[in-house]
Amino acid sequence: MTAADDTTPDCGGEDVPWGEVAPEAARRLLVAAVAAFAERGYHATTTRDIASRAGMSPAALYIHYKTKEELLHRISSIGHTRALEVLSTAVARGGTPGEKLAGAVSSFVRWHAGRHDTARVVQYELDALTPEHRTEIVALRRRSDAVVREIIHEGVESGEFDVPDVPGTTLAVLSLCIDVARWFNVNGRRTPEEVGALYADLVLRMVSARR
Amino acid sequence: MTAADDTTPDCGGEDVPWGEVAPEAARRLLVAAVAAFAERGYHATTTRDIASRAGMSPAALYIHYKTKEELLHRISSIGHTRALEVLSTAVARGGTPGEKLAGAVSSFVRWHAGRHDTARVVQYELDALTPEHRTEIVALRRRSDAVVREIIHEGVESGEFDVPDVPGTTLAVLSLCIDVARWFNVNGRRTPEEVGALYADLVLRMVSARR
Repeated sequence: MTAADDTTPDCGGEDVPWGEVAPEAARRLLVAAVAAFAERGYHATTTRDIASRAGMSPAALYIHYKTKEELLHRISSIGHTRALEVLSTAVARGGTPGEKLAGAVSSFVRWHAGRHDTARVVQYELDALTPEHRTEIVALRRRSDAVVREIIHEGVESGEFDVPDVPGTTLAVLSLCIDVARWFNVNGRRTPEEVGALYADLVLRMVSARR
Repeated sequence: MTAADDTTPDCGGEDVPWGEVAPEAARRLLVAAVAAFAERGYHATTTRDIASRAGMSPAALYIHYKTKEELLHRISSIGHTRALEVLSTAVARGGTPGEKLAGAVSSFVRWHAGRHDTARVVQYELDALTPEHRTEIVALRRRSDAVVREIIHEGVESGEFDVPDVPGTTLAVLSLCIDVARWFNVNGRRTPEEVGALYADLVLRMVSARR
């Protein structure tokens, strides 16, 4: 098995993990970096470790990525963009605020369960980014927050939800979904789909959705 | 400021952080290890880094801890024991299942917000423990799970809660509280007490508590 193999369930809609990254050597290095960062943490991983996992030389890595931080930035940027797409796609399907919220939560949970290695890296290693890159990623995160906050706000306006603290509830809903990446176990009792359905129901309860 | 200073709000009821650890040198090393692990991760931290943060020599460290893993085990063991005490103390105050659940959640959240460095280390570095130590810590975690599951079960039995999936809801409630350690910011808008109150309300909604 090489580092380019990836048996993670595909919940993002791509055919190949990190298929948006080209050329193939750059993609393989990114897959290796995600695995290494998830296993040992960003600070404990060297570019040599990553190159070796990808079956390449350190010199070959430097052709594609000048620094280890550039790899983390690329992973964070693509990971956060995918997470935002997952939420936006669910909302674009339309329906009542309750249907949109349930769809957004179940998709977001499936993504965090299915892509838990990527999600852990993008969620836990934010502080290792340069200040400039961190600002860029925080802006992407705010867009995900805004998608969920807007659905909750819409449900409150229409009288379908009862939520005294919309920003606080938005924070809690996203936090609940994100933490799936910490505890989800591919060998555990629940599939990503089952956790998604359970969490969609719990979140509709959190907003006291009229059903 | 030395590594032994600790301005983290005290939410565990101790007068001195890690006051249960003696002698003083062993306590200072533990405080330094928590800060180092939280900042750079377990694998990126050396025993030399920890000794240096505590203002001690590596040789002095070895008097108290034979390995880096021994420090992590001690931190995990004390951290999980405190978390379990926080939950058990809230339950021991008595009341209806709703009052017990609200009390347990708000205390647990305050602990994870106030002690977020410790909580991150004990929650994210489980895989770095030896198999034997990991088994011991997992047993402690199961006891915390059982405290929350038991309150929810009691509320369902008495008809005060409506919960179709008690184990899944227990998992979600604990996960929601634990993730506070990831996002909580001492300079942020909400105090640990405010997050505790918000989350207690959200969890009572998750169980459809009759109010």
